[in-house]
Amino acid sequence: MRLKELGELSLIKRLGERFTARGPRVVKALGDDTAVTIVDDSRGLLSTTDTLIEEVHFRTSYTPPYLLGRKVVSISLSDVAAMGGVPLYLLLSVAVTPETTEDFFDELYNGIADCAKEFDVILIGGNTSASPGGTVLTSTVLGEVPIDEVVYRDGARCGDRIYVTGTIGDSALGLSVLMERGIEAVSKGPFKRAVHRHLDPTPRIRAGRALAERGLATAMIDISDGLVQDLRHLTEESNTGAAVEFKALPLSEEMKDHLRENPSNRRLVLAGGEDYELLFTARPESTGAIERLKKELGLPITPIGEVLGPEEGIRIVDGDGSPIRLAEEGFEHFR
Amino acid sequence: MRLKELGELSLIKRLGERFTARGPRVVKALGDDTAVTIVDDSRGLLSTTDTLIEEVHFRTSYTPPYLLGRKVVSISLSDVAAMGGVPLYLLLSVAVTPETTEDFFDELYNGIADCAKEFDVILIGGNTSASPGGTVLTSTVLGEVPIDEVVYRDGARCGDRIYVTGTIGDSALGLSVLMERGIEAVSKGPFKRAVHRHLDPTPRIRAGRALAERGLATAMIDISDGLVQDLRHLTEESNTGAAVEFKALPLSEEMKDHLRENPSNRRLVLAGGEDYELLFTARPESTGAIERLKKELGLPITPIGEVLGPEEGIRIVDGDGSPIRLAEEGFEHFR
Repeated sequence: MRLKELGELSLIKRLGERFTARGPRVVKALGDDTAVTIVDDSRGLLSTTDTLIEEVHFRTSYTPPYLLGRKVVSISLSDVAAMGGVPLYLLLSVAVTPETTEDFFDELYNGIADCAKEFDVILIGGNTSASPGGTVLTSTVLGEVPIDEVVYRDGARCGDRIYVTGTIGDSALGLSVLMERGIEAVSKGPFKRAVHRHLDPTPRIRAGRALAERGLATAMIDISDGLVQDLRHLTEESNTGAAVEFKALPLSEEMKDHLRENPSNRRLVLAGGEDYELLFTARPESTGAIERLKKELGLPITPIGEVLGPEEGIRIVDGDGSPIRLAEEGFEHFR
Repeated sequence: MRLKELGELSLIKRLGERFTARGPRVVKALGDDTAVTIVDDSRGLLSTTDTLIEEVHFRTSYTPPYLLGRKVVSISLSDVAAMGGVPLYLLLSVAVTPETTEDFFDELYNGIADCAKEFDVILIGGNTSASPGGTVLTSTVLGEVPIDEVVYRDGARCGDRIYVTGTIGDSALGLSVLMERGIEAVSKGPFKRAVHRHLDPTPRIRAGRALAERGLATAMIDISDGLVQDLRHLTEESNTGAAVEFKALPLSEEMKDHLRENPSNRRLVLAGGEDYELLFTARPESTGAIERLKKELGLPITPIGEVLGPEEGIRIVDGDGSPIRLAEEGFEHFR
């Protein structure tokens, strides 16, 4: 059997089974947005690593190198946000073809440096090497968090409300525009905001930290694979089900415009992925506190559904109460 | 200018210049074997990341996947050894083509798991993705060390003795055999030990830790780029020069055999790289303690030269006292 038949989720599972991933100081190894290890009585170390590969995660035909540099940092920062942590350090592996121009490299590093600076993260290590097959970027971000404030994926309980930050689906919409119109779409034409959401996602560090510090989120994950897929990760870890109302989902004006013209494209919203918004659950009594946080941050935080018992599975409910089918939602490599 | 003209060292330098890499808790960012950040009054966190790329760092035609898995872990462990630290955690990014077989993956992961277990390192995170251009493996290792015991590259002083652990050049010899004879050389024919040294290097964790704990090493680096190149890194950071006697260099029996037949091939010893032995300096009064450590560990630790003033540069001295030319020593990407 070859990997394209096996699928990525299966691979990660096998990997988890192969390793015991246990140790006196390991609170969480695989299976959450970051690893959590104990620093001392009060602090946890968060560690996460992500890779962006040319022709798999991005194409140079539509990706300005400056934004690529920002994105490889942002996506790892987003993982730290989803645990409620503060990112501290960055390590980077950069592999580029010998034909890569100095300009590309300069732009890439400007993006990395600007994003790191913006989020107070210090580049402490890295390596560069040649790559025969195109650019490969791997970021590792280390962060810290008070150990009793970490928000895992597995804390959702029946009756909790489900929330998302920001708007969802924009990244997928932006990608579809970029695939169609190329790099020109970055500066010209419609859906520019969606295009930027895809190329330059914002890690929700402040929101994640505040939710953790105030004890508001019972479970949290960032939306990288797609709303339904990441909701599935969260509910599986929590051993719950969930119901989400499609019409409650926060959509940008651009997405609303797009769906008006293409009503069958709701897949972008449900399965798009790469929004790097936070998906979290909270007790009903936290509603007021979350409302206040939303105003404080100036960031939409929207209730989209409810946590149910595990027997309910995941239901996405349409305006008329009928279920929306979940076939082929989310994104998986190797297929 | 394209990167192949620019060279890797220049890139890393530019990268270092671009980032301030400073923070209240950052003791060392770029420019040593690992980053060193402060955990608390007594402990430092060591972080390092390495990448192995198919067709650049290895070829499947001569690399058994099990040993590839071991090596991607070992080379990062070696960086922690060179700081005198204890490795704790491992994060891995694995990118493979969709055509990769399940067997390859199983073997790769067995190698990773076995090496991690052998050195008490816990896999705490990672990701897998598709790669159109061949296998790309990135390992990040985190370790700890008492903060007052860290051994940097910059502590060598004029008059210190220079030592290496193990034997050197074997990895380069093994690689040349593998290039010539393919994967068959792993199990059959001459130079089998050298071949294994290349495919499955041993990180000198115990030696590095002991040298640090006992305060014996004034500066230390692992030999990844080649003896002369890494000696240059160490002396440049320490602002010293160095003289090394070729005939003092510890060579394996296989290397001695090889040089007897090919006396002009001393480049393998001086510039071979990837031995992952420790190159360190120590005060002359530590000679006895190093001798005892060598016996304790059952590992050769050999004095090979002396630290000189910066004006002396690096001199490799032949048996008759004449200098050996250092042109094109070491290994650089992009050229």
